[in-house]
Amino acid sequence: MPKLWNDTITAHRQAVRDALLDTTASLVAENGLASVTMTQIAEQAGIGRATLYKYFPDVESIMRAWHERRVGGHLQQMAEIVERGGSVEQRLEKVLGTYAMIDHEHHHGELVAVLHQGGHVGHAQAHLQELVRALLVEGAEAGVVRSDVPADELARYSLSALSATSSLRSKAAVRRLVTVTLSGLRAQTDG
Amino acid sequence: MPKLWNDTITAHRQAVRDALLDTTASLVAENGLASVTMTQIAEQAGIGRATLYKYFPDVESIMRAWHERRVGGHLQQMAEIVERGGSVEQRLEKVLGTYAMIDHEHHHGELVAVLHQGGHVGHAQAHLQELVRALLVEGAEAGVVRSDVPADELARYSLSALSATSSLRSKAAVRRLVTVTLSGLRAQTDG
Repeated sequence: MPKLWNDTITAHRQAVRDALLDTTASLVAENGLASVTMTQIAEQAGIGRATLYKYFPDVESIMRAWHERRVGGHLQQMAEIVERGGSVEQRLEKVLGTYAMIDHEHHHGELVAVLHQGGHVGHAQAHLQELVRALLVEGAEAGVVRSDVPADELARYSLSALSATSSLRSKAAVRRLVTVTLSGLRAQTDG
Repeated sequence: MPKLWNDTITAHRQAVRDALLDTTASLVAENGLASVTMTQIAEQAGIGRATLYKYFPDVESIMRAWHERRVGGHLQQMAEIVERGGSVEQRLEKVLGTYAMIDHEHHHGELVAVLHQGGHVGHAQAHLQELVRALLVEGAEAGVVRSDVPADELARYSLSALSATSSLRSKAAVRRLVTVTLSGLRAQTDG
């Protein structure tokens, strides 16, 4: 087969896959994970059940793929903030603020345990940790981030501190948490 | 039965229970949870199996009771630090430092999932959260803790930030994490 044809097949498969993730995610959001079936998904997506099973073995695996795609999107979003320029302080504030808001908005409900079963969450966490670490190194060199603590430890501190968002009720509280977390990172002038 | 006799029975049962927790904890520490049996525990503790079953239905429930006792001991230790006097800054540093060290030293290994099944961990966490919150209110009144963020949120921040200890390798790193966390809490002088 010519290369162009292969590319077309790959693009087609990707488009079907994306549509299946979207369809399943909205069915699950409406009805809850437990009540959505593969038959419903096939019907809603307008493909045969046999075709659906060529893509995914069950509803949970579709939801994990959907979550993986979303987590990937969030990481991409944060990497873009880091690269976009602006002062290191602004970028740090933006990255941590974005992370905190995502964490706050998405970490609710029964789905979390299922979605986090894949290894992708661990990988994303490691990737994010590295992204924040690099930014902190840059900040320490610029004299705005404390240099008495290794950047690796400061990155762990930041992500742990921000995990408190899951227990906060308002966006204002999330913003305050980001402010407090950033205070801990700042270059210290006192003894 | 006279009250004194009842007291004696209660004290005796408590002593047996304590001894069973100690015996089981050391057997589990030596051999791992999976390989310790109720028969071994009865033998090691010098009581009959029938008597042992009057106290506990299985090894896991003994380990949970042991963990509950230990968590209670840690809470007691932290409450004493709070009440002991000294400046609020010193007590805050001591409480968070002690919590971080306990978390660092004990949160390893396969046991954690089993031990945390009881509701006691949630209760202890709520108790600790309240203890830290009260100390932060005192600190804000004394002008050493920031007052732009509610003490309740600062307490959540502190405990979340310190949960990073589980991924730190050295005690020096744990001490640095406590320092960074405390910096976030400090009354802010800059804009």
